[in-house]
Amino acid sequence: MTHHTLHWTDTDRIVATQVATVATPQNPLPLESGAELKHVQLAYETYGTLNAEKSNAILIFHALTADAHVAGKHHEHDPKTGWWDALFGEGLAFNPATDFIVCANVLGGCKGSTGASSINPETGTQWGMNFPLITVGDMVVAQKRLLEQLGVGKLKAVVGGSMGGFQAMDFALRYPESVERVVLVATSSKLSSQAIAFNAVARYAILNDPNWNEGNYTPENQPTVGLSTARMMAHITYLSEEALEAKFGRRLQAPAQGKTFDFQKEFAVESYLEHQGKAFLKRFDANTYLYLTKVLDYFDLAEAWGEGSLLKAFSLTQAKFLIASFTSDWRFPTACSQAIAKTLRQLGRDVSFIELSSTAGHDAFLLETDALNRIIAPFLHSL
Amino acid sequence: MTHHTLHWTDTDRIVATQVATVATPQNPLPLESGAELKHVQLAYETYGTLNAEKSNAILIFHALTADAHVAGKHHEHDPKTGWWDALFGEGLAFNPATDFIVCANVLGGCKGSTGASSINPETGTQWGMNFPLITVGDMVVAQKRLLEQLGVGKLKAVVGGSMGGFQAMDFALRYPESVERVVLVATSSKLSSQAIAFNAVARYAILNDPNWNEGNYTPENQPTVGLSTARMMAHITYLSEEALEAKFGRRLQAPAQGKTFDFQKEFAVESYLEHQGKAFLKRFDANTYLYLTKVLDYFDLAEAWGEGSLLKAFSLTQAKFLIASFTSDWRFPTACSQAIAKTLRQLGRDVSFIELSSTAGHDAFLLETDALNRIIAPFLHSL
Repeated sequence: MTHHTLHWTDTDRIVATQVATVATPQNPLPLESGAELKHVQLAYETYGTLNAEKSNAILIFHALTADAHVAGKHHEHDPKTGWWDALFGEGLAFNPATDFIVCANVLGGCKGSTGASSINPETGTQWGMNFPLITVGDMVVAQKRLLEQLGVGKLKAVVGGSMGGFQAMDFALRYPESVERVVLVATSSKLSSQAIAFNAVARYAILNDPNWNEGNYTPENQPTVGLSTARMMAHITYLSEEALEAKFGRRLQAPAQGKTFDFQKEFAVESYLEHQGKAFLKRFDANTYLYLTKVLDYFDLAEAWGEGSLLKAFSLTQAKFLIASFTSDWRFPTACSQAIAKTLRQLGRDVSFIELSSTAGHDAFLLETDALNRIIAPFLHSL
Repeated sequence: MTHHTLHWTDTDRIVATQVATVATPQNPLPLESGAELKHVQLAYETYGTLNAEKSNAILIFHALTADAHVAGKHHEHDPKTGWWDALFGEGLAFNPATDFIVCANVLGGCKGSTGASSINPETGTQWGMNFPLITVGDMVVAQKRLLEQLGVGKLKAVVGGSMGGFQAMDFALRYPESVERVVLVATSSKLSSQAIAFNAVARYAILNDPNWNEGNYTPENQPTVGLSTARMMAHITYLSEEALEAKFGRRLQAPAQGKTFDFQKEFAVESYLEHQGKAFLKRFDANTYLYLTKVLDYFDLAEAWGEGSLLKAFSLTQAKFLIASFTSDWRFPTACSQAIAKTLRQLGRDVSFIELSSTAGHDAFLLETDALNRIIAPFLHSL
């Protein structure tokens, strides 16, 4: 396998998504459920070059619906950059001139990695609901295999926001010898009952969409109502009440018209949400959404690594931690990050915790890039 | 019209829902939209007897999905009492021995009053989506007509929680000469952008359910997926995060089984929510849910009565106010009640505001009956 080397300059930020095979019939991937996968591919991107000492590798994990494309463009005229592009560059959080950065689409994803929307080579048909349920741990094991193929042993850092943070924590506890630093942004050691409840409603909407058809929907006849409903609801939980108030308030979509007294998308916030729901259909798969929300629900770091004790779980790692939360995030409120930081301090670990001011809600982990650069860059690059 | 007189004792709390005609072709009900209704019936219940001075009448308004049956039982073996039954009795908030209490199902409702699920006498078929959109003001005007039929002029008090509070406020500003006291529980002078957003997703789920069929669904083929999805989501917003955590946490429905690695209702909170969604189908109509959530969205007291100024709006009334919010209510947080109380104080009005401690979230207005009795009883009954 060759590494895709990038010269990270303002004029040359082109990156290509690559694919690695991390499980084969000879080397299957055992899953936490007891099942195993005989064919697993991971889509991934790399930025920068692994140095001779192999000491500059950073693994970034993405959140629920993102992908391997964390920075750069796919071609010269690509209108969109990767989801954390603003964190990449000289003096910023991630510097491809000095770091070797890896980001892979999660196991179970639908952005190039093997998941419910992939063809099962054993049957020649889409996995659909025959895909086994997976966990954060399964995702992490698959990515460790990718790193081995890339020649990466020890990681300078694992980094993740939201569900990406779940993976970063699991990675750090599962492979403590391989992780020097952990960066956690807007995350939690487990989902609250409320968060599980929102996911349950999302799955209910999809599973009961007549087009879902036990997961055997066709491209022409997808459970679009269920999936867009799920996304619209989730989207509300990613934004803060104050952000919605500031951006839309009670403003009508067509204020000059006044109240229309009908069931059109009358308020601006309605129109916005419906747009978000529809746009999501173009980039995400309904079955995959079922699997990945279940991954979220199952995640409980204390249960997985400490027999219910977060202290016991984190005692497994000696890594340095940087933990950031956002004031207006009610999906993973500051208290979730504080619980992790407090546990690490109890263990005498090197931990920096900062609550960043933001009105952007949970989405702040994608939007507050200046603040993230300010705290991540020194954590990763100073001695 | 005769009044249904009740002797309110522990052994005789039987009440019958009655029906009044409040609009006819000769006396139609003009609506805020410009439309009018030529046939309006309101289902209502009364408790106690109007005294000779007609000075003991209290009007209670219900919330989004409730009904006229605020207290008592419908028959001797009725397993369920009315939704605020615990507030009725000697020494409690409402005393049928001394008060004459009225509660009507809202205009646009589906519990006996005229709404989308009613037969339009002009066509002989269900109104469905031909029913005009209505507002809190329209509901209030209809109920004023009911009071006139009952011989009630001046009200000792108007009382409401949540959407009931919307009506109580509108009534107090619309008929200032008729209202001595106003009791507001867990309410707001308008919906936030976030609350509109949740309603928008609820309506999206119903409007896009294939069974909805432009509102012309049959009893056998209703938009059950859309309506139950809407209810499940709304239910999350009625409960506090801490209530969900305490009641369900991350507990599995069948803990002995461990993770099932399938898409059954695995967590207890999932199972609970799905039960709530299904139960709702038996007692509520999908089109009605569309209309009533729109009533919520449209409500803006300052806009309706004060050209955007809450101060100007409340300057219309001289009534005494009792306002209560709950610490864990994130649907209508304390700040919403505080804004109303602050405005009334600026106007020099007699206003008592109290934030009650509760972990029950918005649903506290139905559950914290001891606290409500303690504050409402003296407000209504002392001189």
